[in-house]
Formats: sequence, C-alpha cells, structure tokens
Amino acid sequence: MIENKILLTDCPDDKGLIAKITNICYKHQLNILHNNEFVDFETKHFFMRTELQGIFNEEVLLEDLNFSLPKGTNCRLINADRRKRIVILVTKEAHCLGDILMKTYYGGLNVEIAAVIGNHDNLRTLVERFDIPFHCISHEGLTRIEHDKKLAETIDQYNPDIIVLAKYMRVLNPEFVARYPNRVINIHHSFLPAFIGANPYKRAYDRGVKIIGATAHFINNELDEGPIIMQNVINVDHTYSAEAMMKAGRDVEKTVLSRALDLALHDRLFVYQNKTIIL
Amino acid sequence: MIENKILLTDCPDDKGLIAKITNICYKHQLNILHNNEFVDFETKHFFMRTELQGIFNEEVLLEDLNFSLPKGTNCRLINADRRKRIVILVTKEAHCLGDILMKTYYGGLNVEIAAVIGNHDNLRTLVERFDIPFHCISHEGLTRIEHDKKLAETIDQYNPDIIVLAKYMRVLNPEFVARYPNRVINIHHSFLPAFIGANPYKRAYDRGVKIIGATAHFINNELDEGPIIMQNVINVDHTYSAEAMMKAGRDVEKTVLSRALDLALHDRLFVYQNKTIIL
Amino acid sequence: MIENKILLTDCPDDKGLIAKITNICYKHQLNILHNNEFVDFETKHFFMRTELQGIFNEEVLLEDLNFSLPKGTNCRLINADRRKRIVILVTKEAHCLGDILMKTYYGGLNVEIAAVIGNHDNLRTLVERFDIPFHCISHEGLTRIEHDKKLAETIDQYNPDIIVLAKYMRVLNPEFVARYPNRVINIHHSFLPAFIGANPYKRAYDRGVKIIGATAHFINNELDEGPIIMQNVINVDHTYSAEAMMKAGRDVEKTVLSRALDLALHDRLFVYQNKTIIL
Amino acid sequence: MIENKILLTDCPDDKGLIAKITNICYKHQLNILHNNEFVDFETKHFFMRTELQGIFNEEVLLEDLNFSLPKGTNCRLINADRRKRIVILVTKEAHCLGDILMKTYYGGLNVEIAAVIGNHDNLRTLVERFDIPFHCISHEGLTRIEHDKKLAETIDQYNPDIIVLAKYMRVLNPEFVARYPNRVINIHHSFLPAFIGANPYKRAYDRGVKIIGATAHFINNELDEGPIIMQNVINVDHTYSAEAMMKAGRDVEKTVLSRALDLALHDRLFVYQNKTIIL
Repeated sequence: MIENKILLTDCPDDKGLIAKITNICYKHQLNILHNNEFVDFETKHFFMRTELQGIFNEEVLLEDLNFSLPKGTNCRLINADRRKRIVILVTKEAHCLGDILMKTYYGGLNVEIAAVIGNHDNLRTLVERFDIPFHCISHEGLTRIEHDKKLAETIDQYNPDIIVLAKYMRVLNPEFVARYPNRVINIHHSFLPAFIGANPYKRAYDRGVKIIGATAHFINNELDEGPIIMQNVINVDHTYSAEAMMKAGRDVEKTVLSRALDLALHDRLFVYQNKTIIL
Repeated sequence: MIENKILLTDCPDDKGLIAKITNICYKHQLNILHNNEFVDFETKHFFMRTELQGIFNEEVLLEDLNFSLPKGTNCRLINADRRKRIVILVTKEAHCLGDILMKTYYGGLNVEIAAVIGNHDNLRTLVERFDIPFHCISHEGLTRIEHDKKLAETIDQYNPDIIVLAKYMRVLNPEFVARYPNRVINIHHSFLPAFIGANPYKRAYDRGVKIIGATAHFINNELDEGPIIMQNVINVDHTYSAEAMMKAGRDVEKTVLSRALDLALHDRLFVYQNKTIIL
Repeated sequence: MIENKILLTDCPDDKGLIAKITNICYKHQLNILHNNEFVDFETKHFFMRTELQGIFNEEVLLEDLNFSLPKGTNCRLINADRRKRIVILVTKEAHCLGDILMKTYYGGLNVEIAAVIGNHDNLRTLVERFDIPFHCISHEGLTRIEHDKKLAETIDQYNPDIIVLAKYMRVLNPEFVARYPNRVINIHHSFLPAFIGANPYKRAYDRGVKIIGATAHFINNELDEGPIIMQNVINVDHTYSAEAMMKAGRDVEKTVLSRALDLALHDRLFVYQNKTIIL
Repeated sequence: MIENKILLTDCPDDKGLIAKITNICYKHQLNILHNNEFVDFETKHFFMRTELQGIFNEEVLLEDLNFSLPKGTNCRLINADRRKRIVILVTKEAHCLGDILMKTYYGGLNVEIAAVIGNHDNLRTLVERFDIPFHCISHEGLTRIEHDKKLAETIDQYNPDIIVLAKYMRVLNPEFVARYPNRVINIHHSFLPAFIGANPYKRAYDRGVKIIGATAHFINNELDEGPIIMQNVINVDHTYSAEAMMKAGRDVEKTVLSRALDLALHDRLFVYQNKTIIL
C-alpha cells in the first residue's frame, strides 16, 4: 500500500549525511516529495525532514538508517496519513480556542480535537456546540500538583499527540511538563522575552511600547522560557489603553497559536537546546 | 439621561470650522471624549468625528450646527450606546463568517448578527449552532435581479445597519447596491487593485507574487472598485501552491474583514469620492 | 508675512478645551491646516497639535491662550518654516548615520546636520564626503563625566534642536541627559523592553526568538528605559546566526531611527510620564 | 586549495536526484555546508542549491553530475569566494542608489560597484564621492535602440555579473533584455501586478489604497511582468497625499531592491517559467 511518511533525522554533523539518508530512501524505492535540512554550525548538529511516499518496510528502513548514520542519531518515521489528536486546555478566554474550533470545523486545521479541559466552566457551551467533550477540572481546593495530576489523568484518557494551552492561565508543575516533553504548546500574550509572566498587556501599556505581540512556545520548567515556535506583533499607539491592547492582541494570539499548531501537526518542528528548528 | 453620541460632520473646508463645531458642543454642555478631524486639501473638504457625552437636545444641536456651518454640510448624530445590527451574506466558505460569529460570541465585536443568508445551504449548521437564523436563498433558476430582490426582501426584514459579504461569491446588481449606499462591506481575496475579479489566488500563483493579501471595501457598481476600508498582506514564496496561498490567505481575509467591520460599527468611516477617511 | 507655525498645547483635561483653543486661533485669523488632539483618560491630561497658517502676533496669541486655558498649561509655538538642526553621535557603525546622511542629501529628511561626533575616528571619511564637520572625541583616558562634558561643549557650539545617537554605544551620564531633556533620540537594537543593554542580537539568538527588532526612544537616566517613539521588527528563523540577525537588523534600525527623527523634526511628539504621544 | 563553490542544479524531477547529487559531492570529498531543494509539482521540475567546500576538480565534478542526472539538466558551479560586480543604472532619484552605495561602503552588501550610469547627470556628485565611475548617457536626441546600445557598450566594458536598475525610469528594448538574460534587476514602486507602468503612487492615491509597496524583479520584454524576486508593503491612510506616499515608499523600495540584490549576489535565485525560486 502506498503510504506517506515523514522521516525526521537529527544527529551530530558529518560529511555525507544527506547522501547516506537519501541513498537509503532511494534503495527502499521511496519517493522524496520534500526534503529540508539544516546544519547548526554552532552546535555542529544536523537536522533533516524528509517527506516520503511509497511502500514502507519501516523496520528495515530504520535499521538501515541507524546502521549507516553516526552514533547519537535520532530517526523517527511518522505516519503522515494519520490525523493527529489534540487536547486543549483553557481558562476563560475564548478567542484562541474559538479559532482552533472553527479552523478544525472547516478543515483549516487537519486535526481531531479529542477534548477540551477548562479550570472554569464558562467555555463548556461553546465547545459542546462543536460536539466536543468538555471537562471542567476546577483548581479550587487543590494543590497545584493535585490539580495537574487530575488534568493529566483526563488528558491521558484521550491519548493526544499534542496538548494545546489556549490561554490556560496557570503554571504547570515540572512533573506535568516532564510527562509530555515537547508536546505542550502554549500561547503567551507578549513578544517574549519581553513581559514574561502575568499581565503583559498592562505592562506593555505602562511601558508605552509601540508594538504588542504574541509568542507560541513549547513549555518547559522555566516560566515563558520554553523553545519559541512562532511570534508576531502588531502596531499600537498612544490611543490604546491596556484593554484596547488586549483586544487588538487577540487576533495576533490566535493566529500565532494556530500556525504554531499547524507546524506541529505537520511534524515540521525539531527542538534542540531550547530552540526550534522549523523544516 | 447621560448618553454617548457620535457627531459626524463633513462640509466644504472653511476657516474656523473646528471652533464653530466645538463651541456649539460646549454651549450644549456636551463633553468631547474624542475628536478627530481631517481636511482633504485636494478636494477642499472637511471631515470631523466627535465623540460626545452628556444630555442631548438632538434637534436643537443639529439645528445650531446646520445654521452655523457652510452650505453643503452633512451632520449626523449617531447613538453610540445602541448595538448595531448586521446581516451576513455567504456562499460556501466558513472562515470569515466563523470569525465574526466567534468574535460576536465572546464580545470581540459589539454587534447583533440578525441573520445569515447563504446562496448555498452548507453553512446552516454552523450558524444555527450560534442560535442565529440562517436563510438559504438559492440563485438557481433565478436571474440575478430576481435573486438580489429576494435577498433584499429577507435583508429588509431584519433592518440591518450594515450588510457584510463574508465571501459571498456573487456580483450584486446596481439596484441592490443603490438600496444600501455605503452600507455593504465586502472582502476581496487580493490586495486590490491587483487581481480584480475571479480566482485571485490562482492568478497570484501564476504571476509568482511574493505577497498575497485581502481587501475590505464598500461595494459600488464597479466590480472590486468600491472604497477601500482596510488591506493587509502576508509573505508567500515559491513553495506555495495556489491552494496553499488560499489556505494561508484565509487568516488575512478574516482579520481584515473583522477589523473593517469593527471600524464601521464604531462609525469611524467617511466615504468621499470613492475613498474612505478613517477617523 | 504669512507664516506656518505649530502650536503644541498640553494641560489637565477640561470641558471646552478644543473650542477655546480653536476659537482663539480663529480670532487671530489663523487658518488651521491640521489639528490633532488626544486625551489620556488615565492621567486626565489633554494634548493638542495645531498646524497654523497666517500672520502671527505671537506674544498676544500665547497670552490669550494662557489666560483662557487651565492652570498647568504648556503652550509652545514653533516656527514650522525653519529647518531644524541636529548633531549626530556615533561610535563605529555606519548604517544609521549613513541613512540620515543620505536622506538629508536627497531631501528625504528636512534637516541640517550641523556636525557628527564620534568616539572613534573611523566614520570621519564618510561624514566629510558629505561636507559635514566630524569631531572625534575619544573616551580613552577620560572618565565618563569628563568625556560627556567634552561632548556637550562641542554639541553646544552647534546649538542643535535634537541630538541623535546613531548607534552611539556608550551610556551618557545624568548630567548630560538633564542638559537636553527630551531632545536626545537613541536607537536600540532590540524590541524593547526585551534585551535591554549590551549584545541584544547575541541574546536574541541564544533565546531562539523568531522576530528581531529595533526601538527609537528618548534617553532618560535608566538604560533603555526612556520614552519609546517607534519600534519595528522583522522575522528571523533558525538559519540566522547572531551575526546574520545583526546584519538583517540594520535595515530595521536605520528605518526606525530615521522615522522617529522625522516625527521629531515635524514636532509631532509629546512626552508625558515616560511615554510619547504622537500627533 | 580549499574553496567554496555553489552548485546550482535544475532538471526534470525524478526519483533519487538528491541522492545522486549528494553522492557525487561526497565521492569528490566535498563538504556540504548548506543544501536546499525544491520540487515544483506543477511543472515536475527539480531545483537544488548546494554550498560546497573542499578541493574541487570542477571539470570532472560537472561531468559526473551531467552523466548521472537526467537529460535536460542544468548544472552550474559558481565560485562563492569571488566578489560579484554590478553596474547600476539610474535616472534622477537617489534613494535606491544611495542605499546600495552605503551598504557596499560599510560591508552590508558584498559587491563591487563597477560603475553607475545615469541618463541624467544629477547623481554624478553622489557617486563620485564614493570613488565610483559615473557615466552620463543622455537619451536626448537618440532613439530607444540607439540609447540602449550606448548603455550596453558602456556596461560591457565593466563586465558585470548583474545590472541593477535603481529607479532607472526608462523601458529597455528587447535586444537589451536578451543580452543580459535574468541578470537585470529592476525595482518597481508598487506591489505588482497592481499599478503596472507609470506613476504608481499617483494611481495608488487616486484608488485610495491602504497599503503601498515595491517589487524587485528581473526584467523581461513585458513591462513590469518579469519574474518577481521580492515584494514588501507599508500601511498608508487617508492623510497621505500622493507625494507623501512616494516619500514613505522610498524606504520600502530601497530595502526591497537591496535585499533582492543580496539574494542574487549569493546565487540564491533560480528563474523558471517567469517565476523565481529562492533557495
């Protein structure tokens, strides 16, 4: 059966890597639809993303690659024909969630939204209108660790590829972060590293900035310090109150998050040393 | 009762216009919250938008203004406390409609969507999920004039302030256009005046452009030639097929349309000699 | 004699301010070419910029205004027909200086460059090619205060309206700053408040940001904390080394600085509580 | 001797092309610094740009490639260590020329400006200040063909890699165009295909657009219809006269042209069927 798969390779840089990998693909009679590579000359690390089409003998292909490539190689072969599954975490704001719901509805994002989890209940109606399960897991009366544990239990029922924090306004504990390495995408409402933490629009207003922005990033254990996937900004001026900035920023936030998610859904993201390489 | 009203004035330019208008407002004990004016030196025409707060004696105020200002003055006093009403026309695509639905839902647009009318039926489910009436008025078997007449009849039932063409893919006849002067906002999927008419993405692809865009404009009787309200673009490159451009363009289209609509909802648009002045 | 002047007014907000000011102008038979005002509702402060044309009785005009307007009013009347004079401070980099030289040469900036002062000598040739005096005032062997004093002495010979730090890579001491309040424009090579201080491109690279930018601001006594005039960004990606970011950033830096300077040259900037209002 | 060369390959698409090319490079013991490829699925054509480092046996390398690759393959091996040479054509405007002069001066463009040719004399002083030969070749009293012939004779003396039309405001005849295929870069002061031909800013003003832009493209025999290299836009509004648009547009024009030139200088451009592929 003809299948589409994506081969993601990263390894210490060496001579002849592209030749070796593409040769093996060629010998397996696989057609390369797209190929993109990058060498980080600072870390001397090689990254390649190869879209393959053909009849796969997956085990042998990976064996051939691992045999041929240097020690320390990571090879992943991902089924490009399978629709990925996400779980979305929210608090009270609807715009990022709404954009993902709507894009998924009309086919702008090729994804299955398995469930939405809120620490408040107010977005339930919206989610259920799209026939998607909504879970309210309140943080009230729970420690952070207890709450995160309940989240993880519910998330794991759905076995998602990616977890999207669509304006989920709580910090997640290290155990939670470690459970889903490079699988949790957050949207922060500033152009990081400016305005890390709470109330970025208020602080942008107080500082008198002339641009505001948003940043989609994978979470790690430092607040707003994870690998950045995408950023964008819009112009503001003195006529914008903090609230007007917040309103204007929503379109940036939702677009940045949706596009970052789209990159993840297409397996276009490598994470290496707290940065993303987008191929 | 304290009310908020917007005074829109335009007239042939003259000395002392701002003084005259603001004096009259002052004598009426009205507070000016925002005031913006523009003089078009080419046409020697004056435009002013004044946000007023206070107790209005509307009739006398307008009399005072008309008495004091030059011949050819247009003064409109608009209730800023009333939520405006729109009717949306669509064909098959959901993204622009979806953005307006979602923003209205969470308060990002302060508007009442009175109804959505489609010449196809496929967006009914989406619209009805938001508890908004959907009318399918098929164009099949009808002349353009007959179809537009049916549209107008349905539209007029809802008495909307503004009619939004959210990817309504049919040309409207002059009678329809004349019925709603400067009240019909269209989104065109190119940076006009490039790619007027059908299939702009295909033609953008064929031309090999490096930017694609969208234009929101009031319709007039020339196809895609009405007064432009807002435009925006995004970068593309050789890796984009016509379809990929169309997909990427959707976010621009919807944002441009929503923001143009927002300007109209706040009465920030003057139309003069086929251009918009945004105050 | 018909003259063009710009009236800059700021005062505590009150009812009828626009009426009062424009009335007085009207009584003085002055024509208002452009008028822009802004009320900051947070600080309850009013700002207005009025471009006037006519025969001025300047003293009486200002008396009338000050008599009529509330306590705490600042009124300035600026000759719009006089070309402003600047002194530019540089270190070693040519791109921001070069853009101002070139724009001034072909009339893109309406300014007289009175002199350029460098703490290194390497830009002398470039400056002298444009028949502009260049002074090298080395900081070597001098304390910061001594060096800044020598700078100020040279600057004051030229009596400039504005001092432009076109990649002048040294911090200026508080005495220097106080000598030229809101008259010293700096360009910082990041989108502030991100990457305050040294080596912003290196730090942007290390953080893995996807946008880089530049900020033009008036200096104050906090490093990179002065009132922001203009900011812009460009997209970067993983293929950019720190050096490539620096190279790409130059076009943003120079454009942001030139445009901020242009605003200052047209007296379009108010500074209030560490923010700029651009009218 | 270790050299840097760029291998540009394009050919009908086929299985195994990347493997074949990179294998041959590997066998020649050449290190691949960067490799980028693109397959145009519409035309079924393959493009690859490979930055190579090592000791080259150029003749054998090209033989090996041409033997191994399909019929219709173009392979070019370009010396990346040699600084390219350009001739710039101008009319009267200084901003695009000035930007290239300045960037070349401070190393922002790695290029040798062999000469500047104007059909007017007014830019001579500026050019000669940078110690670059300036030729005034007036078009007065000459037919287009005669004038273009004189241009070509002067250009050919300098044997340039690329000819840059930095606001050269005349159409070049087909013979001239054919003489330098895909080697003449023009800047047009609109976002093509909008406003092809003369006075784009005036026409943009008349149309009431909200963005203006610039397009760098290779010239061909259709006015403003050549392969587009780069485009950018900026926002404008109703306060912009046609002249203000022209002034604001200069920064876009010069930046777009400089960046397009930079791509050409790095051999990153393929031209295929009136489009550019940028690798």
